Amino acid sequence: MNIRVNDNFKNIKETYLFSEIASRVRSYKASHPEAELIRLGIGDVTLPLAPVVVRAMQDASAEMGVKETFRGYPPESGYDFLKQAVADRYSSFGVSLDLPEIFISDGAKSDIGNLVDILGENDIVIPDPVYPVYVDSNLMNGNNINIISGSKENGFLPMPESIKEKKSAVIYICSPNNPTGAAYNREQLGKWVGYALETGSLIIYDSAYEAFVVDDLPHSIYEIEGAKRCAIEVCSFSKFAGFTGVRCGWTVVPEALKAEDGTSLNRMWFRRQATKFNGVSYPVQCAARAALSEEGMVQCMENIEYYRKNAAMLADVFDRKGVFYTGGRNSPYIWLECPDNMGSWEFFDKLLNEVHIVGTPGEGFGKAGEGFFRITAFGTRESTEEACRRLAGIL
Amino acid sequence: MNIRVNDNFKNIKETYLFSEIASRVRSYKASHPEAELIRLGIGDVTLPLAPVVVRAMQDASAEMGVKETFRGYPPESGYDFLKQAVADRYSSFGVSLDLPEIFISDGAKSDIGNLVDILGENDIVIPDPVYPVYVDSNLMNGNNINIISGSKENGFLPMPESIKEKKSAVIYICSPNNPTGAAYNREQLGKWVGYALETGSLIIYDSAYEAFVVDDLPHSIYEIEGAKRCAIEVCSFSKFAGFTGVRCGWTVVPEALKAEDGTSLNRMWFRRQATKFNGVSYPVQCAARAALSEEGMVQCMENIEYYRKNAAMLADVFDRKGVFYTGGRNSPYIWLECPDNMGSWEFFDKLLNEVHIVGTPGEGFGKAGEGFFRITAFGTRESTEEACRRLAGIL
Repeated sequence: MNIRVNDNFKNIKETYLFSEIASRVRSYKASHPEAELIRLGIGDVTLPLAPVVVRAMQDASAEMGVKETFRGYPPESGYDFLKQAVADRYSSFGVSLDLPEIFISDGAKSDIGNLVDILGENDIVIPDPVYPVYVDSNLMNGNNINIISGSKENGFLPMPESIKEKKSAVIYICSPNNPTGAAYNREQLGKWVGYALETGSLIIYDSAYEAFVVDDLPHSIYEIEGAKRCAIEVCSFSKFAGFTGVRCGWTVVPEALKAEDGTSLNRMWFRRQATKFNGVSYPVQCAARAALSEEGMVQCMENIEYYRKNAAMLADVFDRKGVFYTGGRNSPYIWLECPDNMGSWEFFDKLLNEVHIVGTPGEGFGKAGEGFFRITAFGTRESTEEACRRLAGIL
Repeated sequence: MNIRVNDNFKNIKETYLFSEIASRVRSYKASHPEAELIRLGIGDVTLPLAPVVVRAMQDASAEMGVKETFRGYPPESGYDFLKQAVADRYSSFGVSLDLPEIFISDGAKSDIGNLVDILGENDIVIPDPVYPVYVDSNLMNGNNINIISGSKENGFLPMPESIKEKKSAVIYICSPNNPTGAAYNREQLGKWVGYALETGSLIIYDSAYEAFVVDDLPHSIYEIEGAKRCAIEVCSFSKFAGFTGVRCGWTVVPEALKAEDGTSLNRMWFRRQATKFNGVSYPVQCAARAALSEEGMVQCMENIEYYRKNAAMLADVFDRKGVFYTGGRNSPYIWLECPDNMGSWEFFDKLLNEVHIVGTPGEGFGKAGEGFFRITAFGTRESTEEACRRLAGIL
């Protein structure tokens, strides 16, 4: 063909992180078939859906099989019944949202990736280490990316001071963070909102892990005064309700969010979604509403509590051994410094070979991850307990 | 904010078509509360899901509630079990596809809209009248659009001769067509494929209505020799299995589809979806597989047959009255010439006021739709029969 393709795709690095992990694990297993591996590399939930969620999805499926209750095309931005449930959840953080500010989607990843559609050419600020979608979706669009680095010194919570040139930009923030588990407190997030308002920047705030927050930390950026004038928030049912295989999330684009010429970003996102998206499956939206019901919250929070306990057990090992880490609390992730100045992959091999634990080398999430390592709390209680024993033995 | 937004959005026309229809209907009903309106404007299915589909969705929901059978993140491009079912359907048309050529999605609209992400700046060729997503997604990307017009003369099936300059372009084709119901035969589609291969063009082929085909017409563009080197095909479970509210579709990007420098469009689309999409809900994919099963095909085709019969009844009225139309066969749509040189909106008002039938003015689908009118076969048998009587009375 002679047509032009999007050449920006050539700038995206192929990531071999998970295939490299799989290949090292495969080859170790081949030569040590008796080894009992514990996988703490997974970023996916493992507990089943809450009973109330399953029932809601089954009931909605039944409705779709009856002429009188069948539903065709859903509203592109979601049914009001689900938007209301999301708005009620925000009310519990003291945040008031109007329903047209909430857009139901098939997941946070889609929205984070697609948000570039409504933006023009801008400076982009992205923290490192990072969830790769922020970087790759901007590379696909040909945008210029400025990295701000997390480090042991800033507790993997880089602040606006680390931005070289103080000017308007699109800034990505994920808190509690994937992969570091670190979470901004109110004062820190207040500084980010202040910086964005001062420079006319837009913050794209990823709160996918907010359900893990137990301390007095913001669940939503809109808990910070002024954030509605500078921030879009993307969240998900994936971690809170175990919806990684069900697919539902939402994005908040406040009415107050305006470009310099007065263009409403809310209307732009509405238009984008109405053109390139056709709404979320009705049974899935019913399942999501059930997750946010009183009964659903109790059942979902039991699962979150299970993962939290796993995280606390792992964190306890590192505390006792004096290993520096972030996360482990308010997050399902623990991001630790590899002992003895080991490199990420070196530590990966040590854990695999000596105690048969599979984690994720930090440098897979960016340059600033070199010498760090991610382990997750999504395993079973039994395997996590066993992992704690093994880790304590070699650290 | 000082950030730049995507100014191309300013070039998208706000469409008031459906709100204008709603407003005229509302005001008529207010002054004639006794009128029994028949709505033949809908482009959405109305029959419930097939029993085998409902059962599959319920069973999969139950699996998600049990630890041993719970599934987390699905593959971004779909489970192989569903890809295989789609491939088997293509086999029945004599088309052989490899599974990595098939990408499962949440619907044809998303894919058609998002495909622009992998393309560079190209001439775009779009037929008129048209499904608005082709136009709007390209306007959002700042692309230059060349319209080729359907007309009574070409039976609303414009051919390559109507393209002004013979050169490489991205060409959108929808057959059987929305809104005209017209469908290309093998010879005509062969000419399009020949033109694309000769000019190095890419065809984006929308086959969402293929299940309505009864005559010896292509269900897939890949039934045409050489199409795998010049065409992407987007299809959907929406019309075939009544999935407008369930959300599932697929896109075929053949391995043979290469840019001039050898770049594989299949790999680009894989990368796009892996970055900005996280796969389709597991229960939805199970429901889609059930629709393609032997039992599912029988149940779904019963529904299609119901709509086909409605279409045939309506077409019969226009045949008897000597009204020019396209569609009505191989399609749920009938696209008719407004009688007595009436304008689209004039005829809309006449039908509403005199026989209480609501349809869709053709000009809502583009300039070439002026003087034409769309009615659909998605109503009930009873209301369609009554509509036929009323139409026969005033034509």
